[in-house]
Amino acid sequence: MILNQMVQYHALDQTFAALSDPTRRGILDRLGNGPASISELAQPFGMSLTGVKKHVQVLEEARLVTTDKIGRTRHCRLGPDHLEEAVNWIEFYRQQWERRLDGLEAFFEKKEGQQ
Amino acid sequence: MILNQMVQYHALDQTFAALSDPTRRGILDRLGNGPASISELAQPFGMSLTGVKKHVQVLEEARLVTTDKIGRTRHCRLGPDHLEEAVNWIEFYRQQWERRLDGLEAFFEKKEGQQ
Repeated sequence: MILNQMVQYHALDQTFAALSDPTRRGILDRLGNGPASISELAQPFGMSLTGVKKHVQVLEEARLVTTDKIGRTRHCRLGPDHLEEAVNWIEFYRQQWERRLDGLEAFFEKKEGQQ
Repeated sequence: MILNQMVQYHALDQTFAALSDPTRRGILDRLGNGPASISELAQPFGMSLTGVKKHVQVLEEARLVTTDKIGRTRHCRLGPDHLEEAVNWIEFYRQQWERRLDGLEAFFEKKEGQQ
């Protein structure tokens, strides 16, 4: 179970680290419209092919992107990771945060009622 | 508007980078149960105060944590950023992903129907 948690933790690390770069988020946005080659991805960013390849590799390691080399072209598409773990984690955290806020609100309302 | 987008992009960079570390996610989890001092935060992680302080600083810069120094103790609590931007971004991306999957499914169903 501890090993499972560690693997899951490592996956979340990779997901959030992959999402922390605007070019990588842009690549995911673009792939949301359909598969693209490395050079098609590079065009709107005005970036070198090597630069885009590096970003795609980070996304591939985080399972957010899948690539296939067909002939001399590397085709990229959205990967198997649905970001569900990341969303679950954030949602859990937000619920805690809102519970805290509700608690504070109740505290101040009670205090106001006493005055 | 471009400036706005850039500021928003930078905020998302900071949010996702802050979340990419398991200790920082652990600190947020802990603060979800209520405010804590730096030494209270350090205890369960078996980490030095300096190490925890650095992590808290990253979280504070991403507006996920707020701190107040009272006397010699630094009190930490959840910050003003509700992670809404981060969730919005991920949700938008997931919707695109699901649309792609639906499109593929429809394509294969149509193909099956033709055979």
